[in-house]
Amino acid sequence: MPFCITMGDPRGVGPDLILLTHSKNSLPAEAVIYGFKSVFESRSKLLGLSFDLNIIEPKTDCAPFDAPGLAAFSCLESAVNAMNSGLHDYMVTCPINKEAMQKDGFEFPGHTEYLAARTGTENYHMMLAGDALRVILVTIHEPISRLPSLITESRVKSTIEAAIQTCRIDYGITSPKIAVCGFNPHCGEGGLFGDEEEYFITPAIKLLRNRYAADVLIDGPLSADTIFWKAMNGDYDVIVAMYHDQGLATVKTIDFHTTVNITLGLPWVRTSPDHGTAFDIAGLGTVDTSSFLSAIKVGAQMSGNRKNGIH
Amino acid sequence: MPFCITMGDPRGVGPDLILLTHSKNSLPAEAVIYGFKSVFESRSKLLGLSFDLNIIEPKTDCAPFDAPGLAAFSCLESAVNAMNSGLHDYMVTCPINKEAMQKDGFEFPGHTEYLAARTGTENYHMMLAGDALRVILVTIHEPISRLPSLITESRVKSTIEAAIQTCRIDYGITSPKIAVCGFNPHCGEGGLFGDEEEYFITPAIKLLRNRYAADVLIDGPLSADTIFWKAMNGDYDVIVAMYHDQGLATVKTIDFHTTVNITLGLPWVRTSPDHGTAFDIAGLGTVDTSSFLSAIKVGAQMSGNRKNGIH
Repeated sequence: MPFCITMGDPRGVGPDLILLTHSKNSLPAEAVIYGFKSVFESRSKLLGLSFDLNIIEPKTDCAPFDAPGLAAFSCLESAVNAMNSGLHDYMVTCPINKEAMQKDGFEFPGHTEYLAARTGTENYHMMLAGDALRVILVTIHEPISRLPSLITESRVKSTIEAAIQTCRIDYGITSPKIAVCGFNPHCGEGGLFGDEEEYFITPAIKLLRNRYAADVLIDGPLSADTIFWKAMNGDYDVIVAMYHDQGLATVKTIDFHTTVNITLGLPWVRTSPDHGTAFDIAGLGTVDTSSFLSAIKVGAQMSGNRKNGIH
Repeated sequence: MPFCITMGDPRGVGPDLILLTHSKNSLPAEAVIYGFKSVFESRSKLLGLSFDLNIIEPKTDCAPFDAPGLAAFSCLESAVNAMNSGLHDYMVTCPINKEAMQKDGFEFPGHTEYLAARTGTENYHMMLAGDALRVILVTIHEPISRLPSLITESRVKSTIEAAIQTCRIDYGITSPKIAVCGFNPHCGEGGLFGDEEEYFITPAIKLLRNRYAADVLIDGPLSADTIFWKAMNGDYDVIVAMYHDQGLATVKTIDFHTTVNITLGLPWVRTSPDHGTAFDIAGLGTVDTSSFLSAIKVGAQMSGNRKNGIH
């Protein structure tokens, strides 16, 4: 069975995304849903939609609405067990509520960190890919005050390498063009506003330029206020950004409806729509399904390419 | 005489912008150029364009190409003297090369700081305004490592107030809608990734909400990865961003050709195109004049509104 979807928080838009997509015949028939039938039953009534989904229920003692964090957690856990056993080709996760899950024993900042732990992955990276831009982050959910100690040559190097690998393995781009952001405004303007570029970013770029020679273009460090425009115009396949807002503010504005969140470095493919639970519109049928559909499409493309060994 | 333009670096695209715009009959006839005739003579020959510009030459002993930093500096100085004497309504500055100017005695990081010093302005702010977005910065050219000590309640407050003032005085928006970014990713996610939101940003917002009550909408702190999309869709008139790349990466991508750099807080209006000297294409006639034209248009609009006291 090619791929699976986790239901996410039972009170969120996850079930809406699945039911709406299914009702428009856009959900591939082979989709396996890790979720609770009772949730889909009540939600499908609310939306006035029938549901004949392929649902696998995780084993728990609680009713999903009594312990929504535990319900989302157990769906995720079952799906990861199945992925680790090779039962599915890729996984699409629906939005969770971190607070609710953490209350119920989930000890991670989010999906990404949990998946890394469950697969023994040390070098994992978060990439956001939209129709126009792909952005991969050196640091993810970190306070700004910690960034200066986290921007190291080794982290920058491993993120650039992840960008190269995903281009080759997941997207079939054999000679990728990578753009690397600076850390400080205007890349520090020659040391005037900071020197992380000189000490950590430039050395990482030089080392990898030597290693990959003519096969890969690695440009940088480049100022974040000009790099996205160039990438949108085809100069680059992936942008390596140093931190969350530097990378994500632009991609999520330009590709608002189509951005997909991808975890790189795992032994298998995981994608997700790039939005939260949106409790306020759950059950209304108004949620935009574009990002969820893109997550399925990108997951299929990436796992297909990995299978075919196109690199 | 309504407005003036400084030539900028004699080796840069400043003279091209002026000559090309003039040749397309897009330069208002009343424009006064602070520049060197010899520069426009040689550049107009290169471009195959005639020039009958209203040029005021600053007094210096050096030929402009012998000391390009000094040439740009003296044009700027003369223009500021004229502005301070009330000779012109607004000023448009062409790009300078900071290193060259600093070599020739200019002791400022850029135009903005020089203009603040020459007008005795303590509370100045940099705004970037494009067709779709307006963004004002709490901090400008600072290393990331200094940001945590610079994000204070007082700085956030003064920047939000500058946003409100420019909406009212310069744009004629009497009940402005202001969006304030958080500092950390996801606004710190309730303290998990930093607490500058709780200690500095939220208090500043609350204080100003009380002061302005129903006349002004102040939303925030909001995550930078969702705020720009909302502003583009009309939810906000101005975005207050905490630092350079958080605010400028997106506006300069979305409004690449039309973004104008505006210094707020000065006693008069100053705008500039939002790009550098572009030495590599100077004299080719290929420079895009859109941002320069926008700078003239926005300068005229802002100074006109201030004169008419539309607020």
